[in-house]
Amino acid sequence: PDQNPPGEAEPSWQLDKQRVLKVRSWRGKTFIDIREYYEKDGQQLPGKKGISLSASQWSKLKSIIPEVDKALEEI
Amino acid sequence: PDQNPPGEAEPSWQLDKQRVLKVRSWRGKTFIDIREYYEKDGQQLPGKKGISLSASQWSKLKSIIPEVDKALEEI
Repeated sequence: PDQNPPGEAEPSWQLDKQRVLKVRSWRGKTFIDIREYYEKDGQQLPGKKGISLSASQWSKLKSIIPEVDKALEEI
Repeated sequence: PDQNPPGEAEPSWQLDKQRVLKVRSWRGKTFIDIREYYEKDGQQLPGKKGISLSASQWSKLKSIIPEVDKALEEI
């Protein structure tokens, strides 16, 4: 669906206390949003730091993981 | 090493024309920077849109990929 029905949360995962990966649907396209959140009045709100990946950028990211991990070991 | 020697490029991969994943080392810690770049005077410069993941956030991201992909299929 283009949008989640009201009240239905978007699938999301904590990367740590303040970082969240969220699957979002907007104008018929799907995005993988990786973002910093902050707390205000007891609510978790999205901050400016972050990036929304398209499905194809997400696929590309997954495909390079072995190379990235190799670079991480060597650094 | 804490820093790449001058002239040695940080390992980086294009996610698409304007999006880059870069492995960086800063103050003895390693980061995975996912960021939008723009071109100015023939140079590719980092933009504001982006996020630097710590090694543990990167590990967490990798661990949730199967669940994220499942959510992407179902959305």
